[in-house]
Amino acid sequence: MKLSDKHSVKVRFNEADPLGIVWHGHYLRYFEDGREAFGERYDLSYLGMYKLGFIAPLVSIHCDFKRSLKYGDTAIVETTYTYNPAAKINFSYKIFDPISQGILAEGYSVQVFLDKDTKELQLSSPAFFEEWKKKHLSI
Amino acid sequence: MKLSDKHSVKVRFNEADPLGIVWHGHYLRYFEDGREAFGERYDLSYLGMYKLGFIAPLVSIHCDFKRSLKYGDTAIVETTYTYNPAAKINFSYKIFDPISQGILAEGYSVQVFLDKDTKELQLSSPAFFEEWKKKHLSI
Amino acid sequence: MKLSDKHSVKVRFNEADPLGIVWHGHYLRYFEDGREAFGERYDLSYLGMYKLGFIAPLVSIHCDFKRSLKYGDTAIVETTYTYNPAAKINFSYKIFDPISQGILAEGYSVQVFLDKDTKELQLSSPAFFEEWKKKHLSI
Amino acid sequence: MKLSDKHSVKVRFNEADPLGIVWHGHYLRYFEDGREAFGERYDLSYLGMYKLGFIAPLVSIHCDFKRSLKYGDTAIVETTYTYNPAAKINFSYKIFDPISQGILAEGYSVQVFLDKDTKELQLSSPAFFEEWKKKHLSI
Repeated sequence: MKLSDKHSVKVRFNEADPLGIVWHGHYLRYFEDGREAFGERYDLSYLGMYKLGFIAPLVSIHCDFKRSLKYGDTAIVETTYTYNPAAKINFSYKIFDPISQGILAEGYSVQVFLDKDTKELQLSSPAFFEEWKKKHLSI
Repeated sequence: MKLSDKHSVKVRFNEADPLGIVWHGHYLRYFEDGREAFGERYDLSYLGMYKLGFIAPLVSIHCDFKRSLKYGDTAIVETTYTYNPAAKINFSYKIFDPISQGILAEGYSVQVFLDKDTKELQLSSPAFFEEWKKKHLSI
Repeated sequence: MKLSDKHSVKVRFNEADPLGIVWHGHYLRYFEDGREAFGERYDLSYLGMYKLGFIAPLVSIHCDFKRSLKYGDTAIVETTYTYNPAAKINFSYKIFDPISQGILAEGYSVQVFLDKDTKELQLSSPAFFEEWKKKHLSI
Repeated sequence: MKLSDKHSVKVRFNEADPLGIVWHGHYLRYFEDGREAFGERYDLSYLGMYKLGFIAPLVSIHCDFKRSLKYGDTAIVETTYTYNPAAKINFSYKIFDPISQGILAEGYSVQVFLDKDTKELQLSSPAFFEEWKKKHLSI
């Protein structure tokens, strides 16, 4: 079962570099936009987690760039939750052209849970996240 | 009497836009770099103020762009404190070419003081800032 | 007669600073978002001008900050063209809360025209812009 | 034989997020800062390549985050060229605390060569890069 969301991003003038193409670092913003859209749709937002006492910083990020994006382009970010039994949130991302469906970039991220006050790493999944997985993944 | 600091900035690849020149919004980063260098030199840093219980958000910013900066260019940001008897911090900025001395941009900023916890606007200058002005401006 | 456009922006996680509020420099991105939305609606886009042989860099920008924006907030950017008979594009901006209608920030920008190849400053308005003003301002 | 450069970065106020720590996307700027410092030291700069007719966009980037950086922190970016016989530029990065020497982040990047005009992918290394490897790696 695949839990994913598609979100449209439009390249801002200030995101393109002197070569006229999007500076690679901005793809991490697009991934974050995708992650937030996913979180809103499936009730897994940063602010929601914070209210429950947790923050979920990234511990790993990866991106492979296939084709460049230019100023004015529109692209789709598809964000998919990947099941991991550990106390981690794993997402994979595909950025593609809405017309040709050609892949522009692919990547993944890994997040862990910290107590929002003590900043202590949570070695087992917070209860809310176990509930979330049960609800959304029918496991 | 002029209280100012000169700080060198180098244009990063990711700060130039598709026209090959620095995107105008980045000049506010250079102003901030200048403000921080000034704060370190004259003991008026964000972190120092925070420890004393205050934050100093900007309420006004202005920039006039004279000549463009390109990727790889180095420029000097001259940050000057402008005396204001009110509970405000006023800075003016000049960005210039270190070789020709030609002006590339000019601007100014105005900051107010808020209590860091209550976020309440301070209608009179915090004591530390009155001391600071006395010490540095010989007034 | 007022020529304006309203565009919604949502504060990204990475646009808020350690105080939890939007870093002031990002307002220039919101102004640019507003300017682009205006350009799309009234046929005055960067890419359109470029095809006609012109670029229109900013020569002046100003912003007054009234109330802060936080991560997760949505705001409306109202971008209004201000008539200027000279070879300049003048916009004013209002950023406001969609619910309370309270003003969060106000500002303005001034752009000039350069030949896209020679980068020469255009002392009189390009023909296309005179046409544009006639069409949209009924002057 | 290890070809590497160490470059100091200082966390800007506007690079820290609402949690008070550097937003993960900015690490790619630090990697780029490291890559540019390496390029200046070992004569492998973007502008130099451009003059020879090539651009070298990233095709892959990876970062593992170990410990967070805060506003005001200083860190060292160690950028190391990793030999690859193919028409690619491989770098690895270590960001560490200058005092404790503790690792804050690690990552790598892969770049390919494109003709700067045709944007065509170069399947074999440009002559200048083969020369560069001979000179610097004594191979």
